[in-house]
Amino acid sequence: MATAGPEIERLIQILARLPGLGPRSARRAALTMIKRREQLLDPLARAARDVADKVVECGTCGNVDVADPCSLCRDPKRDNAILCVVEEVGDLWALERAQSFSGRYHVLGGILSALDGVTPDDLNLKGLLARVGAEGDPQLEEGSATENDGGQVREVVLAMNATVDGQATAHYITDLLEATGVKVTRLAHGVPVGGELDYLDEGTLSQAFKARRPL
Amino acid sequence: MATAGPEIERLIQILARLPGLGPRSARRAALTMIKRREQLLDPLARAARDVADKVVECGTCGNVDVADPCSLCRDPKRDNAILCVVEEVGDLWALERAQSFSGRYHVLGGILSALDGVTPDDLNLKGLLARVGAEGDPQLEEGSATENDGGQVREVVLAMNATVDGQATAHYITDLLEATGVKVTRLAHGVPVGGELDYLDEGTLSQAFKARRPL
Repeated sequence: MATAGPEIERLIQILARLPGLGPRSARRAALTMIKRREQLLDPLARAARDVADKVVECGTCGNVDVADPCSLCRDPKRDNAILCVVEEVGDLWALERAQSFSGRYHVLGGILSALDGVTPDDLNLKGLLARVGAEGDPQLEEGSATENDGGQVREVVLAMNATVDGQATAHYITDLLEATGVKVTRLAHGVPVGGELDYLDEGTLSQAFKARRPL
Repeated sequence: MATAGPEIERLIQILARLPGLGPRSARRAALTMIKRREQLLDPLARAARDVADKVVECGTCGNVDVADPCSLCRDPKRDNAILCVVEEVGDLWALERAQSFSGRYHVLGGILSALDGVTPDDLNLKGLLARVGAEGDPQLEEGSATENDGGQVREVVLAMNATVDGQATAHYITDLLEATGVKVTRLAHGVPVGGELDYLDEGTLSQAFKARRPL
């Protein structure tokens, strides 16, 4: 489009590659930003630069943070004995928002997928084995050995998505961890809180029925 | 959320204020950007900085560009005699994509709205009157007087949105321009190309019927 300069065009193109935005909404977003330069465009440029400069991947768990090890791996209050394995950083954030887990995390960085050609080598499985197999993670020990027991992982919670690929990956990891003797669990399947039975698929209802619990 | 640093949190907050993105999709977008740093995050930071530094509002028409007057106002091939009035820069871009107008533009920068408290003083109406009333726009003349006639505006096309506020603004401008004797037209209403009658509202169908044309 010759109407706007190449700078605006470039901004639109990049915005259009973000999830949730297409070419049309990227154009709207760019225009809104230009119109509200002080409130949106300048702060976005600064924030994106800040994140690009400062954020690193945690070498221990794979979370993203401004420090390595990340704040979750450094937190002495968290329990080293339970390790929750997730596909992506977004899943870790989702679990943190739920505030029902206070162990450590391990981000695989993906999921096994025959269709997308993702093999075990593409996932951070070596790191997982090292953390489960070793007497606690060496990198973790340095910072926190004084405050918690730094002990061996006793339980691995597989918190994969409830998709075919997610469950296949969970089974693969279960087999992988069998030799270590660690306890392997997975998230419960069932009726989502607030969910209506009439709208749920048969698979979920069947799982919810099988795993019914006394009131 | 304590999981990510304040830098990431800030980026998410700004992204969430863009049209088309909410808190959840902004989080997804931020994570995607962090994951694809070279392809998305760095380029976005640069592009946003570039646009923030270079893009200005055209003092003649209100378009945004890296130069003032903008490329459309400078283009000697465009017809000074027809002036198309639009609400926002996005509308100008949309008309340019349609490639069916080669006159000049004038961006109002908004629309009269009793609900939102937008009065005629908030719109660029003075500039419009100056361009229509004067013997061509002085700022425009400098650059293009040698190549085109630089003559008086003979027709003003009101290309407002077909909303209540848009049409009210169009009527207001029509009254405003009455004294200048310039010809005032508006975009045709009718069935959108590709549209199905069954899905159209009565207002559109009624307008399309009234404005029917011989085949």
